[in-house]
Amino acid sequence: MAPPTRIGLAGLAVMGQNLALNIAEKGFPISVYNRTTSKVDETVERAKQEGNLPVYGCHDPESFVNSIQKPRVVIMLVKAGAPVDATIKTLSAYLEKGDCIIDGGNEWYENTERREKAMEEKGLLYLGMGVSGGEEGARNGPSLMPGGSFDAYKNIEDIVLKVAAQVDSGPCVTYIGKGGSGNFVKMVHNGIEYGDMQLIAEAYDVLKSVGKLSNEELKDVFTEWNKGELLSFLIEITADIFGIKDDKGEGYLVDKVLDKTGMKGTGKWTVQQAAELSVATPTIAASLDSRFLSGLKEERVEAAKVFKAGGVEDTLSDQVVNKKKLIDDVRQALYAAKICSYAQGMNLIRAKSVEKGWDLKLGELARIWKGGCIIRAIFLDRIKKAYDRNPNLANLLIDPEFSKEMIERQSAWRRVVCLAIGSGISTPGMSSSLAYFDSYRRERLPANLVQAQRDYFGAHTYERVDMPGSFHTEWFKLAKSKI
Amino acid sequence: MAPPTRIGLAGLAVMGQNLALNIAEKGFPISVYNRTTSKVDETVERAKQEGNLPVYGCHDPESFVNSIQKPRVVIMLVKAGAPVDATIKTLSAYLEKGDCIIDGGNEWYENTERREKAMEEKGLLYLGMGVSGGEEGARNGPSLMPGGSFDAYKNIEDIVLKVAAQVDSGPCVTYIGKGGSGNFVKMVHNGIEYGDMQLIAEAYDVLKSVGKLSNEELKDVFTEWNKGELLSFLIEITADIFGIKDDKGEGYLVDKVLDKTGMKGTGKWTVQQAAELSVATPTIAASLDSRFLSGLKEERVEAAKVFKAGGVEDTLSDQVVNKKKLIDDVRQALYAAKICSYAQGMNLIRAKSVEKGWDLKLGELARIWKGGCIIRAIFLDRIKKAYDRNPNLANLLIDPEFSKEMIERQSAWRRVVCLAIGSGISTPGMSSSLAYFDSYRRERLPANLVQAQRDYFGAHTYERVDMPGSFHTEWFKLAKSKI
Repeated sequence: MAPPTRIGLAGLAVMGQNLALNIAEKGFPISVYNRTTSKVDETVERAKQEGNLPVYGCHDPESFVNSIQKPRVVIMLVKAGAPVDATIKTLSAYLEKGDCIIDGGNEWYENTERREKAMEEKGLLYLGMGVSGGEEGARNGPSLMPGGSFDAYKNIEDIVLKVAAQVDSGPCVTYIGKGGSGNFVKMVHNGIEYGDMQLIAEAYDVLKSVGKLSNEELKDVFTEWNKGELLSFLIEITADIFGIKDDKGEGYLVDKVLDKTGMKGTGKWTVQQAAELSVATPTIAASLDSRFLSGLKEERVEAAKVFKAGGVEDTLSDQVVNKKKLIDDVRQALYAAKICSYAQGMNLIRAKSVEKGWDLKLGELARIWKGGCIIRAIFLDRIKKAYDRNPNLANLLIDPEFSKEMIERQSAWRRVVCLAIGSGISTPGMSSSLAYFDSYRRERLPANLVQAQRDYFGAHTYERVDMPGSFHTEWFKLAKSKI
Repeated sequence: MAPPTRIGLAGLAVMGQNLALNIAEKGFPISVYNRTTSKVDETVERAKQEGNLPVYGCHDPESFVNSIQKPRVVIMLVKAGAPVDATIKTLSAYLEKGDCIIDGGNEWYENTERREKAMEEKGLLYLGMGVSGGEEGARNGPSLMPGGSFDAYKNIEDIVLKVAAQVDSGPCVTYIGKGGSGNFVKMVHNGIEYGDMQLIAEAYDVLKSVGKLSNEELKDVFTEWNKGELLSFLIEITADIFGIKDDKGEGYLVDKVLDKTGMKGTGKWTVQQAAELSVATPTIAASLDSRFLSGLKEERVEAAKVFKAGGVEDTLSDQVVNKKKLIDDVRQALYAAKICSYAQGMNLIRAKSVEKGWDLKLGELARIWKGGCIIRAIFLDRIKKAYDRNPNLANLLIDPEFSKEMIERQSAWRRVVCLAIGSGISTPGMSSSLAYFDSYRRERLPANLVQAQRDYFGAHTYERVDMPGSFHTEWFKLAKSKI
């Protein structure tokens, strides 16, 4: 094929290659560039193999930029941080006024805002676009969360509408909002993803450790769950995982995988932003902490020895449980805990939207997550509908549909968490969700005591339940005067 | 009295006034200054009233600085952030090489590091000094956590050794370390304080809501607890609080205090730093989240209506519990949960110390918290001894003494958390601590599944339990090839 192409893509690791091929496949000729030029040739070769897709390879940034039709649009898929700045510097040397740069990485939203401002001064447009779906999603239809310059979005709207995953309610993309909103929404998406994965791991743990389910049974359970309210990508791949045999030895591969979870930063940011914005996200925080604790494998091995030697009763082996009932309880617990986790994530997004004046539409976000992305699930349609019913819903938990579901499932949920606690295993995500639920629906919390303590030692004052105003009491003097 | 004085203090809100009087009382003539000069006169008047203490009032910064002997030392007690910068600017106009500024506020440690560097360029010394103990501690003996210039510390060592709270093992002060270490340690101290307060509030909640204890009974319980292993300032003031009658109506004041807890930022920073440093601090995070949720009073009132109308069984009223047994269980749960919270805080401090090369001594920190500060407790002596036994202790939980205590208390702890869960109330702090304990002492966590998922959708690779190396599996292809 020959230039000019419709769009360019710089950064040809697997995600970049796949997204470029996806775009080309949808009928948009694309120029591709990578600093290590072998990746360029690799991509062009793949384009040939995968159906002579219109991909034009460039070995230097100048010819890359010049090969794109004006106003030019370039998507970058390089590592967040300094590599993005370096790529912008390289490309913008050849870009002209009205051209547009899109960062498709998991970038910290403030970096995008800083860059958008700097680009604006040069007359360039800028978008920070969250891309979810992993390698497979990038190739066959990701969920796209573009935020920043609306004009830039308009320049690529025809492309992203076709490139994104397609579901019953349309393509999984929408203009998120101004500034770094696209990155922020993607960040929280990832935080929710942490929560989902942790909750599934806990369900697995309870079924395996307490219920003594085999991998084949686990595969059947998750396959079954994937036909109902839990239907989702993560449940589906979990069922797949339990079925894979170890290619290096006996048994199943999942049992050979080391219990250490890696992470790349978006979960951490989510928890930090939640703290910054005074939004409780205990389930997401528990997921992050679980990853941290998983990393301390050597310490855990030592601690296990200490406590076993000390006689901590291991009640796992002598439990008698009704498997069928347990499986059903765990399913309900997983679902209820998941609702709480999404409620937390959605409220975090809203808090940021209010702070920044982004005017984000929570229902729309649930809609574009219905396909393409890692957290895609039938469940998201229920969330979309909840916000359709009431865009100002204070919390998903009190939506009429969700509250009904919570009420139906809470007994099973309490049973599962207490069973785990009694068995000496932890379900940090499920129990954090439960504490969130029980705190949120509690008219009167024991926070009165904490505030009284604060007033006692720090004169921080308190409000009263029966009259307006701010009060301070000389607690110490009153207490000592009574003696 | 007449100048030159030994030291100066700027910022005469209650904390500043009290610390100045404390210093004067210990025999160090002190100059005091405040922008609003009425505070200066107020302080001088108090000094007269409280025993003709050597306090010298100054109405302008120049005469204030000039009234102090060289090399001059000035403590600031003003609001963190911009007011500190403004005060430094005002004072440094008159300070000379070798003089020293000390920030006694709850400052973000990086601000202190930035200022120390800027001061150094002017030949001035700088310290960020955490001061804990509230108003009462400032007056009668706080816990002091000075970090920054060691030369600056040497200039005030004779003063702080006398001004700090005095306990069996000496004055509650030590040179913490370089840079912002004093502020950082004080920040984590406050995070731990959040944890302690939340855990006490949960103990109160279970005893009151499930055990139906009256305020008088609660007072007796906490008074009793304060004679044993829980002996601490916060338990003591909690006992006091339950005894205070409402001066504006019938009944007890604690019942009239609104269940909304305020906060000032150090808890938030603690949680954010923990995430940054990959340290699990779920109990402290749960305390922060509980404060956030307490603030949503109106939402909680609405949610309570929704779920009551929906038929969520309230099992609180028809519980039959053995009060004596419950009280004993809750005491054990509180103590065990508290150990976990301190383990988290201590490990956060160590992680930062390693990152920054501060070489902090955890046992010494426990020692200087034994008196003066809000978390002062007999329990801290046990922590000090644990680090004396093994300065490289990976986690407090596996110290021989603490692990024994955990083992003895774990059954009661599990009973309390499950009782709360069954009763529909939340104990987020106690259950987060329990999940931390059960995760930390677990040789094999279900994190293998999470890592398998990550490798499935993102090719993030995994390690194996049985051989070294990094592996990637084409899970999707293998799963689909089987069909």
